Amino acid sequence: MDDSFNYLLTLEYDGGGFHGWQSQKGLKAVQATLEKALFDNLRQEICIFGAGRTDTGVHAEGQAASFFLKNSICLDRLVRGTNFYLKNVPLRVLSAQAVPSSFHARFSAIQRFYRYRILNRAVMSPLKDGRVWWIAKRLDLRALCEAAAQFVGHHNFGAFRGRFCQSATPFKTMDVCEAEEIGDEVHIFVKSRSFLHHQVRLMVGTLAQVGLGRLAPSDVVRLLQEGQRGTAGPKAPAQGLCLTEVVYPAAAFKL
Amino acid sequence: MDDSFNYLLTLEYDGGGFHGWQSQKGLKAVQATLEKALFDNLRQEICIFGAGRTDTGVHAEGQAASFFLKNSICLDRLVRGTNFYLKNVPLRVLSAQAVPSSFHARFSAIQRFYRYRILNRAVMSPLKDGRVWWIAKRLDLRALCEAAAQFVGHHNFGAFRGRFCQSATPFKTMDVCEAEEIGDEVHIFVKSRSFLHHQVRLMVGTLAQVGLGRLAPSDVVRLLQEGQRGTAGPKAPAQGLCLTEVVYPAAAFKL
Repeated sequence: MDDSFNYLLTLEYDGGGFHGWQSQKGLKAVQATLEKALFDNLRQEICIFGAGRTDTGVHAEGQAASFFLKNSICLDRLVRGTNFYLKNVPLRVLSAQAVPSSFHARFSAIQRFYRYRILNRAVMSPLKDGRVWWIAKRLDLRALCEAAAQFVGHHNFGAFRGRFCQSATPFKTMDVCEAEEIGDEVHIFVKSRSFLHHQVRLMVGTLAQVGLGRLAPSDVVRLLQEGQRGTAGPKAPAQGLCLTEVVYPAAAFKL
Repeated sequence: MDDSFNYLLTLEYDGGGFHGWQSQKGLKAVQATLEKALFDNLRQEICIFGAGRTDTGVHAEGQAASFFLKNSICLDRLVRGTNFYLKNVPLRVLSAQAVPSSFHARFSAIQRFYRYRILNRAVMSPLKDGRVWWIAKRLDLRALCEAAAQFVGHHNFGAFRGRFCQSATPFKTMDVCEAEEIGDEVHIFVKSRSFLHHQVRLMVGTLAQVGLGRLAPSDVVRLLQEGQRGTAGPKAPAQGLCLTEVVYPAAAFKL
């Protein structure tokens, strides 16, 4: 790999237009769609490594993905040319940069940020459809915030992993888990080095239960202590979730 | 009309799903869609008066519309029942209230607020598609704000009216016309008692020309002085525009 050129892309996509990040037979995934556009643009078979394998329906404003090329390329051509071939799909390359051959979008990442949007008002919003989880009943924001704070720190997130989670360990460190009221929405912000499969959606689904008064903030503590799969949630719908940013250490960019 | 009951609704809709507010033969308009849902809910032929006749593609977060009923009705049934029949279209009744028989959503209104969203970054946004006007080239916000300020006050807006404008006079008073940078967007807020046909889109299109350096703020002054139809613009696309609020005097609500 020493003689090849490594590039990092940042991506935005409407998750509603894809069957998730990862390529699956016969289903339109973000990864395969991007690989095809890169092939059309660069005439090379390309294998993309994504920072976060977002589920079907989950959006991204700041997904990161890296790939190797046999030759160096003008960054402007990489962005504009690839976007030209993406013009009919809800996916765009926002920016590109050259990175060292040691860089890997997934393994070099040290922080991932997600935002979950809940629309909390009596009537659904036609203008926000597909971007938010609509909860008509008024949420208790104070209880929800108190519960969110319980997630911060190093915990066994075994109750907050999906059936098909392949992680070797359920232990994760949550750096941020905060809820904020923004107009008629409640946004939940989370930040961690990495997440288990369905972790954010199971956390948000549980927080919504607290906001609705069906669980207490102390139940979150109990769920973390017990660590039993299938006890948290229900899982919040994909459409409210967005991968907003992936962070790398400065050293990872040193060419 | 003294023995009938008058109701005011506030509405949200995705303008991309309709051929404008006003019913036209064979085209799905907001007005006819709402009248049909009200009929399905209330089993009465209803004629709706809208506060602003939004163009095809223009959105509304706070459209107002009033109508007469033969009998009084529970407001909750009016909102929920009508929304039930709207479930397959991007239109919702946000709230309802009883108003005096003298109230008319269009003629009683004293202020209309519109917001225009420009996405000003190099790459289009899949998540904002249909909600913004994408301008890739960097706008000069200072020049744009200076030009926007020229619109405030009582002017001849003859240069800023569409071909099919039916207004008796081109004179209007603009109470607010302000531009604000919000992240990678530029929002233009306008407020007036009423607007000419296509006025906001022609104003925004002209402001964009100023932001792009193709017109000077002083050109806005000249266009207002000359008042010649067809000299301003081009017309900004409908999808960036949203009717955010309609205001009525408190007295209009006195039952």
